[in-house]
Amino acid sequence: MSKKLRIGIYGFGVVGKGLYDIIHQNRYVDIEITKICVKDKDKKRSLPQGCFTFDQKEIIQDSSIDVIVELISEADEAYTIVSEALKLGKKVVTANKKMVAENLPELIEIQKEYGGTLLYEASCCGSIPVVRTFEDYLKNEPLRSIEGIFNGSSNYILSKIFNDGLSYDQALKEAQELGFAEADPTLDVGGFDAANKLCILATHAFGVEIHPEEVVNFGIQNLSQFEVDLAKSKHQKIKSLALAFRNNEDKIIPLVLPCFVEKDNTLFDVEYEYNAVKINAEYADSQLLEGKGAGAYPTGAAVLSDIIAIQDNYTYEYKKLNHNSYVGLVEDISINVYIRFEKEDILKNLGIDVFEEIAISGQERAIRGKVLLSKLLELKKAPVEDKILIAVEEKNFLEDSVTSKRDDSKVAVAL
Amino acid sequence: MSKKLRIGIYGFGVVGKGLYDIIHQNRYVDIEITKICVKDKDKKRSLPQGCFTFDQKEIIQDSSIDVIVELISEADEAYTIVSEALKLGKKVVTANKKMVAENLPELIEIQKEYGGTLLYEASCCGSIPVVRTFEDYLKNEPLRSIEGIFNGSSNYILSKIFNDGLSYDQALKEAQELGFAEADPTLDVGGFDAANKLCILATHAFGVEIHPEEVVNFGIQNLSQFEVDLAKSKHQKIKSLALAFRNNEDKIIPLVLPCFVEKDNTLFDVEYEYNAVKINAEYADSQLLEGKGAGAYPTGAAVLSDIIAIQDNYTYEYKKLNHNSYVGLVEDISINVYIRFEKEDILKNLGIDVFEEIAISGQERAIRGKVLLSKLLELKKAPVEDKILIAVEEKNFLEDSVTSKRDDSKVAVAL
Repeated sequence: MSKKLRIGIYGFGVVGKGLYDIIHQNRYVDIEITKICVKDKDKKRSLPQGCFTFDQKEIIQDSSIDVIVELISEADEAYTIVSEALKLGKKVVTANKKMVAENLPELIEIQKEYGGTLLYEASCCGSIPVVRTFEDYLKNEPLRSIEGIFNGSSNYILSKIFNDGLSYDQALKEAQELGFAEADPTLDVGGFDAANKLCILATHAFGVEIHPEEVVNFGIQNLSQFEVDLAKSKHQKIKSLALAFRNNEDKIIPLVLPCFVEKDNTLFDVEYEYNAVKINAEYADSQLLEGKGAGAYPTGAAVLSDIIAIQDNYTYEYKKLNHNSYVGLVEDISINVYIRFEKEDILKNLGIDVFEEIAISGQERAIRGKVLLSKLLELKKAPVEDKILIAVEEKNFLEDSVTSKRDDSKVAVAL
Repeated sequence: MSKKLRIGIYGFGVVGKGLYDIIHQNRYVDIEITKICVKDKDKKRSLPQGCFTFDQKEIIQDSSIDVIVELISEADEAYTIVSEALKLGKKVVTANKKMVAENLPELIEIQKEYGGTLLYEASCCGSIPVVRTFEDYLKNEPLRSIEGIFNGSSNYILSKIFNDGLSYDQALKEAQELGFAEADPTLDVGGFDAANKLCILATHAFGVEIHPEEVVNFGIQNLSQFEVDLAKSKHQKIKSLALAFRNNEDKIIPLVLPCFVEKDNTLFDVEYEYNAVKINAEYADSQLLEGKGAGAYPTGAAVLSDIIAIQDNYTYEYKKLNHNSYVGLVEDISINVYIRFEKEDILKNLGIDVFEEIAISGQERAIRGKVLLSKLLELKKAPVEDKILIAVEEKNFLEDSVTSKRDDSKVAVAL
């Protein structure tokens, strides 16, 4: 018998508790949780006081601990813990997408320099093995695109609006009551959370490093009944999608935007708290991975899977990133958008080439037009005082700038 | 630079040609195909004669070859090649589901004894990384069930019947013309191919060894307009499903049967040549993996992924199989079926407890009733002279014999 695996955990929130339960029930694993590091000394907890430590150094400095598990919510503090642990050559598992997305190049460098190892499957799409699938199974596959529902809160709200007829405010309130959305929902409904996940996955999927600040992300906060009716009239739904396309010049176009989705898109039926990622690969073709995007057990299960893998010396290889790096981030590109606004200025500020007017009531206008990605990024960085909704239509919003389908006639072996 | 990976291939059919193309186009891999072993000396081929060998020993005995790839169609011959190669300690990749399913316990034993390694991702569901997902990511997860569309030919035919209004015969003819079904389609439409895949996946998913002969599989050959109309009247579709449930006593119930599927089942929308596997896990919860189940490139991509993995010393660990083996194959159980037949005898022979008569035309009767799995297995092994269709209804066909949902109230950490 190999000796019992010993782990130390930072944080005892939803995911920490889920992991604790799973470890104690699951007959396939034999793990000892040595210490759980938490901050608030006065908070009432479900476990005896002796299970906890308030000294952040205790776990990192305990050489009897095999794997360090970082499950706190603050990204900066998490980075401090994780980077210190990696510098000590430790094996670290994290679920913190913001921390990973904002620091991935540094985290990779630290691992190279100090020999520590970091896994973060649970940071993207909860229980879905999406990092692992890109990293291992698809590491030899040139990908054309990934399209995903990466934020369960936004998807839950949109499902409630489209399937159950709730207003945005009602749906948000319900999501908050059920614990699917935070008191300040901006990170979720504003597309920031999905952008973090998109950056992480793009590294494994395409071999490109993207900082969340470089991603154009707009949310569903200002969605109105007008767009809901517009979508319904065409048998479409609106989904908050995270998108990364490879164009003909091997540049990646990353986007997080509300999208008018057609019925024949497999993402159309991904509802409520579910996440999904649709992959278009050169040879493996179209794939869909779907599962619970959050929650104590689904996310805890992903963390557990990483703990076991890292103990077996599994590491991310970053094959595409280390490969001759011909894939990069797109510099600029124009895309077709739907935009609704009150103040005319936005059209001029964004330099939109309007090609369709959709009249609404007095103050508000909605148009379809062409806009540069760089202008959208400026708007994201310096939001204006207006209730703006920016969305795209699934078909043709990138027009012909993305990689076309492989021409099979050229490549098939003639019989 | 590491030296170029050298592989030898047995077989140059659809998948062999697909793999050949992918290797020669894909910038992420650097592989040399040393020899391709084929049988028919007179067949005209797309590559120069010098690429081929007709001597089955040549590849196995070439010590400069790193990985042996077995892609022939005959299962027995494939077993001879693969087992001989494994006994020489070689690394072997195969796509042959029949061969793997019929010989998996022996193949595992040979690897233990001789040190060779075998991977077979491409044997199940083409491009979908399903063996890998069970084997690695879900190896610590107690699973409740897997439900899949594992046979692209059957699914294509059913989609054509349900979506495009074709008859079974028309749909089969079209599938054959498009290369989705063999001239003798029995293996596919009779559920034998799906049963093979189910046996392979059950080993990784549940840790249980099942021989294809132990699986009750019935096909769609005798599907008539009556069932199609019956399904449509209830907004259902009929899908050929491969099912494995874990019951309350940790026994696995494997089945391949036409199934009346409800609209809210994610498998309802998996159409045409697509495959999918729906996983119900204790902690990771519900997951769906969907992709192309066959074809030169999708299957070739799965083979390539195994070639790279096996060269990096990846092996299947069979964790659940090696774990204290409390999971076994169910001995017997009764299930609720729909059955249409012409000759009364079948009711007595199967010992069916009829609880609903559905009258049809003169000769034919259709009923709903309860039957023992063992009786169905007898019928599979000794088919009778009658056009029988056996199907199940998604809801309640196993009644209360399968593992109920985890009782969260017992396990959650109280706050």
